[in-house]
Amino acid sequence: MRIKLTLCYDGTGYSGWQTQPEKDTVQSRVESAVFSLTGETVRVTASGRTDAGVHAVGQVAHFDVSANISADRFKSGLNHFLPQDIRVSAAEAVPSDFHARKSAKKKTYVYRMHLGDEGEALFATRAAKLDPNIDVDAMSAAAEKLKGRHDFAAFRSSGGSAKTSVRTVFDSEIVRRGDEVYYIVCADGFLYNMVRIMTRFIISCGEGTMHPSDADALFKSGDRGLIKGLAPACGLYLYKVEYL
Amino acid sequence: MRIKLTLCYDGTGYSGWQTQPEKDTVQSRVESAVFSLTGETVRVTASGRTDAGVHAVGQVAHFDVSANISADRFKSGLNHFLPQDIRVSAAEAVPSDFHARKSAKKKTYVYRMHLGDEGEALFATRAAKLDPNIDVDAMSAAAEKLKGRHDFAAFRSSGGSAKTSVRTVFDSEIVRRGDEVYYIVCADGFLYNMVRIMTRFIISCGEGTMHPSDADALFKSGDRGLIKGLAPACGLYLYKVEYL
Repeated sequence: MRIKLTLCYDGTGYSGWQTQPEKDTVQSRVESAVFSLTGETVRVTASGRTDAGVHAVGQVAHFDVSANISADRFKSGLNHFLPQDIRVSAAEAVPSDFHARKSAKKKTYVYRMHLGDEGEALFATRAAKLDPNIDVDAMSAAAEKLKGRHDFAAFRSSGGSAKTSVRTVFDSEIVRRGDEVYYIVCADGFLYNMVRIMTRFIISCGEGTMHPSDADALFKSGDRGLIKGLAPACGLYLYKVEYL
Repeated sequence: MRIKLTLCYDGTGYSGWQTQPEKDTVQSRVESAVFSLTGETVRVTASGRTDAGVHAVGQVAHFDVSANISADRFKSGLNHFLPQDIRVSAAEAVPSDFHARKSAKKKTYVYRMHLGDEGEALFATRAAKLDPNIDVDAMSAAAEKLKGRHDFAAFRSSGGSAKTSVRTVFDSEIVRRGDEVYYIVCADGFLYNMVRIMTRFIISCGEGTMHPSDADALFKSGDRGLIKGLAPACGLYLYKVEYL
């Protein structure tokens, strides 16, 4: 039986999704919980790895078990064995050709930013801090420029395994609510670190060190060196993975 | 020189404000930071103790130093030595008769609640979870009943040192924003655990096990046993302390 899980986690205390020797990762926690519940050693496959400190509201993963447990018991059963900062929000049986990564059609990320330092201790691990004088309109214009089908080679860290760097960005927008600014981006897939580099570009436009129209040269050149660094992991949330 | 600090902290990792042997507390962290910055061993006095797991957006504290450091250096200086989940948001020199607890005229707390379990791993240490079918209108009516000058003996845990249990509640209201419900309460002072017991009463009214009109009997009897338990610490934020 193949089980599809929807997972929410606070990535602050974990070395990312993927199991690594001597590290506390979300994947190893979920695999341990499956073992505690079923007695079976399984490999849990996610829609994609999240880096250390990155959060998820709706990560999706799958695994195969032979245990005779009804699918709807997996939610409460795994939550019993998981720490409070990793929760299963849904569990269902899926056909054996469902694959959390390969079957995904759309992914949505939210990047959370906070203007100024009021309440900083409470958002330090949950949002990136911005200068309150940042130009949010320029950030919106930059986000708008990233929409569409483009070669995102300039928005990719080395180390990913994707064959092509062409992706289609369906939505890319900045939403402001008081002191909070959210970048919401939905695409058919993302390259390694792509959202954090896109966000770094958008922030640079807000700070005035880059201009939204620089997006054209970025797409054309594919030169990763044009954007300095990447936005911090703590602001990033894998929000939703869609399969239909 | 007496220094007034405004502090924001995520209380999750601390055994409350007050220094205790073998415990990691906010007070001991702040006192250590003052020692690291000035070389002086000081006692830092807060507007009130917060319990383990309770957060603060605007806790106020004071201490005396003889070090020749300008007051505006204390913010960045102490933040250099404090962990990320404790931040000084303001520091200023105040007259020597200013006292963080005794001079306080009004305190405002916010209690954060979340309807349902969407995103639970991300709010587990930051909000109390409520059934999404809870009656928010009944919660509002209960909050309204707690306004005014009353004897709050029924809303007080044993262990506090206050001589009288009469307090004046200036504001007491429920605000809903989507899946989030906030209880905002401002008074001239609070008894031990008073906000968490008031919130427990309000939640019980929303769940239908108590009724807003029960407030009258609670004020009259002063019987702490009428409200079962108290709302969890993780939802509570000391929001503001006013001195004018």
